[in-house]
Amino acid sequence: MIISTKRGTPAAELDKIIREFEAKGLSVTMIRGTDYNVFGLVGDTTVIDEKQVRANPYVENVQRVSEPYKKANRLFHEVDSIIDVGGIKVGGSEKIAVIGGPCSIESEEQAVRIAREVKDAGGCMLRGGAYKPRTSPYAFQGLGTEGILAMAAARKATGMPIVSELMSEDKIDEFEEYVDLVQIGARNMQNFQLLKAVGKMKKPVLLKRGLANTIEEWIMSAEYIMAGGNENVIFCERGIRTFEKYTRNTLDLSVVPILKQKSHLPVIIDPSHATGDWRLVESMSLAAIAAGADGLIIEVHDNPEAAWSDGAQSLKPEKFRAVVEKGRKIAQVIGRDM
Amino acid sequence: MIISTKRGTPAAELDKIIREFEAKGLSVTMIRGTDYNVFGLVGDTTVIDEKQVRANPYVENVQRVSEPYKKANRLFHEVDSIIDVGGIKVGGSEKIAVIGGPCSIESEEQAVRIAREVKDAGGCMLRGGAYKPRTSPYAFQGLGTEGILAMAAARKATGMPIVSELMSEDKIDEFEEYVDLVQIGARNMQNFQLLKAVGKMKKPVLLKRGLANTIEEWIMSAEYIMAGGNENVIFCERGIRTFEKYTRNTLDLSVVPILKQKSHLPVIIDPSHATGDWRLVESMSLAAIAAGADGLIIEVHDNPEAAWSDGAQSLKPEKFRAVVEKGRKIAQVIGRDM
Amino acid sequence: MIISTKRGTPAAELDKIIREFEAKGLSVTMIRGTDYNVFGLVGDTTVIDEKQVRANPYVENVQRVSEPYKKANRLFHEVDSIIDVGGIKVGGSEKIAVIGGPCSIESEEQAVRIAREVKDAGGCMLRGGAYKPRTSPYAFQGLGTEGILAMAAARKATGMPIVSELMSEDKIDEFEEYVDLVQIGARNMQNFQLLKAVGKMKKPVLLKRGLANTIEEWIMSAEYIMAGGNENVIFCERGIRTFEKYTRNTLDLSVVPILKQKSHLPVIIDPSHATGDWRLVESMSLAAIAAGADGLIIEVHDNPEAAWSDGAQSLKPEKFRAVVEKGRKIAQVIGRDM
Amino acid sequence: MIISTKRGTPAAELDKIIREFEAKGLSVTMIRGTDYNVFGLVGDTTVIDEKQVRANPYVENVQRVSEPYKKANRLFHEVDSIIDVGGIKVGGSEKIAVIGGPCSIESEEQAVRIAREVKDAGGCMLRGGAYKPRTSPYAFQGLGTEGILAMAAARKATGMPIVSELMSEDKIDEFEEYVDLVQIGARNMQNFQLLKAVGKMKKPVLLKRGLANTIEEWIMSAEYIMAGGNENVIFCERGIRTFEKYTRNTLDLSVVPILKQKSHLPVIIDPSHATGDWRLVESMSLAAIAAGADGLIIEVHDNPEAAWSDGAQSLKPEKFRAVVEKGRKIAQVIGRDM
Repeated sequence: MIISTKRGTPAAELDKIIREFEAKGLSVTMIRGTDYNVFGLVGDTTVIDEKQVRANPYVENVQRVSEPYKKANRLFHEVDSIIDVGGIKVGGSEKIAVIGGPCSIESEEQAVRIAREVKDAGGCMLRGGAYKPRTSPYAFQGLGTEGILAMAAARKATGMPIVSELMSEDKIDEFEEYVDLVQIGARNMQNFQLLKAVGKMKKPVLLKRGLANTIEEWIMSAEYIMAGGNENVIFCERGIRTFEKYTRNTLDLSVVPILKQKSHLPVIIDPSHATGDWRLVESMSLAAIAAGADGLIIEVHDNPEAAWSDGAQSLKPEKFRAVVEKGRKIAQVIGRDM
Repeated sequence: MIISTKRGTPAAELDKIIREFEAKGLSVTMIRGTDYNVFGLVGDTTVIDEKQVRANPYVENVQRVSEPYKKANRLFHEVDSIIDVGGIKVGGSEKIAVIGGPCSIESEEQAVRIAREVKDAGGCMLRGGAYKPRTSPYAFQGLGTEGILAMAAARKATGMPIVSELMSEDKIDEFEEYVDLVQIGARNMQNFQLLKAVGKMKKPVLLKRGLANTIEEWIMSAEYIMAGGNENVIFCERGIRTFEKYTRNTLDLSVVPILKQKSHLPVIIDPSHATGDWRLVESMSLAAIAAGADGLIIEVHDNPEAAWSDGAQSLKPEKFRAVVEKGRKIAQVIGRDM
Repeated sequence: MIISTKRGTPAAELDKIIREFEAKGLSVTMIRGTDYNVFGLVGDTTVIDEKQVRANPYVENVQRVSEPYKKANRLFHEVDSIIDVGGIKVGGSEKIAVIGGPCSIESEEQAVRIAREVKDAGGCMLRGGAYKPRTSPYAFQGLGTEGILAMAAARKATGMPIVSELMSEDKIDEFEEYVDLVQIGARNMQNFQLLKAVGKMKKPVLLKRGLANTIEEWIMSAEYIMAGGNENVIFCERGIRTFEKYTRNTLDLSVVPILKQKSHLPVIIDPSHATGDWRLVESMSLAAIAAGADGLIIEVHDNPEAAWSDGAQSLKPEKFRAVVEKGRKIAQVIGRDM
Repeated sequence: MIISTKRGTPAAELDKIIREFEAKGLSVTMIRGTDYNVFGLVGDTTVIDEKQVRANPYVENVQRVSEPYKKANRLFHEVDSIIDVGGIKVGGSEKIAVIGGPCSIESEEQAVRIAREVKDAGGCMLRGGAYKPRTSPYAFQGLGTEGILAMAAARKATGMPIVSELMSEDKIDEFEEYVDLVQIGARNMQNFQLLKAVGKMKKPVLLKRGLANTIEEWIMSAEYIMAGGNENVIFCERGIRTFEKYTRNTLDLSVVPILKQKSHLPVIIDPSHATGDWRLVESMSLAAIAAGADGLIIEVHDNPEAAWSDGAQSLKPEKFRAVVEKGRKIAQVIGRDM
């Protein structure tokens, strides 16, 4: 950690600052500059609260040198983590996972029917929403437990593991029993209470990036889950908010190589929510694979115009099949499969 | 609601679209344009899901004309709502409420001591965090129930109502019993589960704006709470995320006149979290009052360098007093008091 | 164009609005709603200034249905435009153009040497900066004319066309004489004076997207150039500004399919400026090709640590060769070549 | 400047890095950390190009401690600069300057008429656009020289200095002769060629903040002008682009106290362009004064519905008068006048 102090800071204040850090077990080096003095702190700087240091009126700036995360950090875990989701391996350098399914589960019949389409087209996992985060209290809020049971029936029919979004702690037992991969949605990425709760679950977690969160904050949210004891976290990029109006969000594919540098956890891409427009899903899916993503999660619906939510961004099964087929060829070019 | 369709949409498709909307009880007018055809829908368009309409491959665009909120809408409630918080009135055109207190409650002694300073300087309510949303799982997470009880002791000592952040449903009974104004933090602005839960509480709610949320989404979150039955909502602007690096967030004061146009609910400003720097708090507080805000919520600590969180943005009591005194004069210029 | 008026607008005002639009040759349809009245205007609405309409105190909102661009619009020009740059074709569905070269031209010897490396590795055009837009007045500002002549020498030595950034009107003759593709940089995307000037040039233009501009504004800037008479415009995405700190900008690859829908002009991707980090360039290049881009423009330097600018984002020639080779395989998967 | 190197950097590389910096006349201190080594450089670090340092593959991060600007820096110029604009003093701690006028000059008669209204209402300077930066090539581009002469006539009639936007170098003689304060628009804030050119002018410069630029970049653009020899620069905040849709831009009033800390130059606020809505101008003007701004620049038109541009954000003269009168009272509360 590097701390710079203002010009004209009295010597007694500089001494006091040094003694305080040394009392916390840190080694302190001072560099006298022309306009500022700079302190370098060596040791376990996670014990220091940056904002508290900034409260000192003589302090100009505080900069961390080390990353604030440990368990999610590639520096201390060089090998790629491979997460087992109901028998499907996500991560590593081989197979790319393709997850498909409707935005909202509408009935058991619909869940089973679309799951069969997804599997037939080359998907390996079923997605579906039973608890829906909706901007409006007047919009359809999801089938709830009935939706989760419908997905479980679809798993029984197809053998595919299922992924669904958990929105509150009081459904943890239900998800622990029925769901294979527990999704934390973008709007809950910093719902720390919920992160702590899933940190105690046994099921792996799909952690979506928040609408306006940095990659560092995203990794810190994974760290919350891991610090609770659940180290099976998969990142999912779903676009960030920008001023662009032609897309719902802006898909940030550079997260793929960055997360590979900074962390050992897998990363998958959601082109459906990122763009909000089914006409953009194929090209963004192929781009994600070429960028090195470990998986895709795509909305699939056999009648998007009648979907209960997000029809505009859902692919019909035949379009989804085309994405998988083209994607597989790109995967093979970069030495993977799908 | 206005729907535009692509050039070359077959007449049969246009007819089908019209019949579908009419079946939902809407009156449909079609305007034939040169490049597009446009449909105007009149009636209760809240029954229509925009995204489902967009799923139609012939649809180019969907635009709402009416606002999607009702209970929070000034259009249907012309008079300013005045919210009673433990006897203090927030909103209306008279008194501006000043809330002060530490970021984190550290002990009962600290809570009582700072509460006295806040009251003595002209504050009318005590803020304090007992449950803290922290980016890092390794940072101080708040005293919990002990902190809430310390605040209740401070209320007893000073008579001032207390405001604190609720992070999860399982503490609702505790907050209903001890807290006068229940804060929903920026990171939970779209934690819809929590919004529904506080919608059933009897205590008023202070709803912070999310880090990257639009004013419309913010009003929709108020609508969630009101739709649940709790109409006592106060908005709190605390800065939005931008690319600027000299401030923690960018304080958006234009929310004040906009919320006054769009809604009847009060709005208060948090200059401490918005800027992240105590040196900017005074000028932003005075600006907020001049802009017409109904209140301020300011971090106050008697020893910021030793604060357990957010020391950098806390005012010492004498600085807080100066803000209240200058602010009162500005309030009087615009015909209010503080 | 759709105009909505406030509740309670007097009938006389509604009549006045209708007569004004009809006087401009537009056909007006009024739809009476519950909370608002809505006018649909049909005809050449480009004669209407939205902001002037909004000045009417009874007007609530104004929304365009048609795009504000014509010459750049796919709607009126269905076939892909193919731009000839010194004999290299950019656009269409076949060959993907790869442009490489240093951020700054440092000497004729350097320009020729790197040009040979670029060509040898599979590049088809040389990029290089002679006039440099630098945030600091104290940073290296480019070799100027000497740099342009050095690039011309490199073209002579290799046969490759050259692209360089034009920063002011007074160098137009120099660029018309020596440069094959005239780059307009991100910071000048809305320097309308310069856009008008290059609209009169005979050389094709590479138009970079501004740091925080929407795709619609970007197309409007192309429209400026085309309206001046120069219809040979190529779009270049170089990342937009977001709050993310791990990358210099956020590369927005969704522009590729969107520009293909909205316009007939080609689009190329600059992964070097978008990420600011050479370690991210390969994966973003492959992603761009998979997304359907018509070309790449990549910074190449044989000694990045000694480069006079932007060393951090430059690839060494052997890395650049690897990108071209892998990229070509992906291009073939999607039915193109490179 | 602080440079951190990767874990495992060979000792020979560390030595090489130290020798390179020492060869540039810098003093180097190395701090050995647990995961990283850190170098502190003391001396004139403006000779170092950060991006070149980052090109070294062993370098993890580079952080500046000193600000990159000198002439605009408060550190080296403690007293507020007061800029003389045709006899009106802008800056310092006394009088706040109020500039009013139409977005576009439409005729000499209009310019004189509105100038008289502005002066009569308490304004001290006339604004007006003769060269207009318009997003569309088909929109009104301004009267050009005729507009500048019309403003000069209005100055003659009222005695008020005039401010207008300069868009290209070839009009510099015209502006040097007729205009008192030369405006550089938001879209040209990083048109470095134009900044260099106005750096050689004798007239003071009003430098608007770019749509998505940081305060540091803005000060660097002032530094460009000052480095050219023209030290009379006034900052003008006009809102930044965010995802908010209810306002045209987001007015960032925290720039006022920050610019006062970082620089000695004056800062004025443009609430008209920032909000894009005349209904928000009064409250944002009062807020700007309370925040400590040195001036306001407000669009005034006597018939906004017929204005040739930006009618939606123009105040009628009587509204402008009300802003000045209320603003003056707030100015007096904070010890200034207007």
